[in-house]
Amino acid sequence: MTNTPRIVEVRQNILKHNDEVARELREEFHEAGVFVVSLVSSPGAGKTAFLEQTLTILNRQCHPAALVGDLATSNDAARLARSQAPVKQITTGTLCHLEAAMVRTALDGWNLADLDFLFIENVGNLVCPSSYDLGENLRLVLLSVTEGEDKPLKYPTIFNSADVAVITKIDLADAVEFDWTAAKDNIQAVRPGMRILEVSSKTGQGMPEWISFLTSRPA
Amino acid sequence: MTNTPRIVEVRQNILKHNDEVARELREEFHEAGVFVVSLVSSPGAGKTAFLEQTLTILNRQCHPAALVGDLATSNDAARLARSQAPVKQITTGTLCHLEAAMVRTALDGWNLADLDFLFIENVGNLVCPSSYDLGENLRLVLLSVTEGEDKPLKYPTIFNSADVAVITKIDLADAVEFDWTAAKDNIQAVRPGMRILEVSSKTGQGMPEWISFLTSRPA
Repeated sequence: MTNTPRIVEVRQNILKHNDEVARELREEFHEAGVFVVSLVSSPGAGKTAFLEQTLTILNRQCHPAALVGDLATSNDAARLARSQAPVKQITTGTLCHLEAAMVRTALDGWNLADLDFLFIENVGNLVCPSSYDLGENLRLVLLSVTEGEDKPLKYPTIFNSADVAVITKIDLADAVEFDWTAAKDNIQAVRPGMRILEVSSKTGQGMPEWISFLTSRPA
Repeated sequence: MTNTPRIVEVRQNILKHNDEVARELREEFHEAGVFVVSLVSSPGAGKTAFLEQTLTILNRQCHPAALVGDLATSNDAARLARSQAPVKQITTGTLCHLEAAMVRTALDGWNLADLDFLFIENVGNLVCPSSYDLGENLRLVLLSVTEGEDKPLKYPTIFNSADVAVITKIDLADAVEFDWTAAKDNIQAVRPGMRILEVSSKTGQGMPEWISFLTSRPA
């Protein structure tokens, strides 16, 4: 395809620009003392439910906030707002991922120094978000038991770009005959030593361990 | 972002090139008398399981074949090959969707006139594949009950680019308290009049209706 060299060049420019903005954001987050966690996963892996539980628990003890990305609708922001934490929706139109500049724009009007944690929920997509640094301190990749154990092998880049894997919807593990050993082996094959958490937003199982992991991190 | 006009221009060129190749493919498929069905969905919505069942059933009565796209691994091709139908894997590397040129390359060595049906399983992604015509006659979008009823509203473009919606993993509908009315209303809100099929690849429920729908279509 004759377009290829131009695509690569434009793509490199976009990524370079994104990295610059992400670096600025990371400095701002650090100065303000806010710990930033981004969440990536397939559509429907349970990012919003997990985040709603997380915000609800954290909101009792500190100041969390969230940005949530979707192509269309502000349904997720409405769901997350039930936690009482500040939430803003980023609507991307047809864009398949969040970029650092969108995060910066969305933060307008918020005083970062008032926040302890900022969560950024990406568009549901196991491919495209992997290349875009959002200035976060920690990137979670969520994998629901209903998606199958092979996803780390089939989408290695996103697992490699993340810091922690969260296996979600574990209340359904028996119903779908989830193979825990295969899933964990596949995660470790792609990213040896990766920390794996297991949660059910429905039953609350695993949430205390997650909150403890999060709040015990150095600031 | 100063890159935007160049991105739009390059993207338009890619899509134009893709449309040209897709048009040529569509003519070849028509001349060869092969009916081509593409499948798009989130990662883990059950495309491969659904396709394995479909190929196994069709292979008893006619000549189906399949191309299957993934970023990495040829696991899906190996699964589909159990159906005894011809199958080829397309590995996209970091590319988040299939393009018509990849389909054309993958078809090299196959005589289309020997086939009755060709299935093309796209990379698991509810965003990016929507813009790429693959020369198919019919595009299915799969939505598993475990993903939630809101996905059509949140990923409207892909539902608009598809011809038929297939609700998968219906054996799990009760376990996840799937709201059938909301799901169907959301599909119809995005694409009024869209045909909806309901299947479980695990129990076989809905497969006869799907096969009947497929084989009763005019050539």
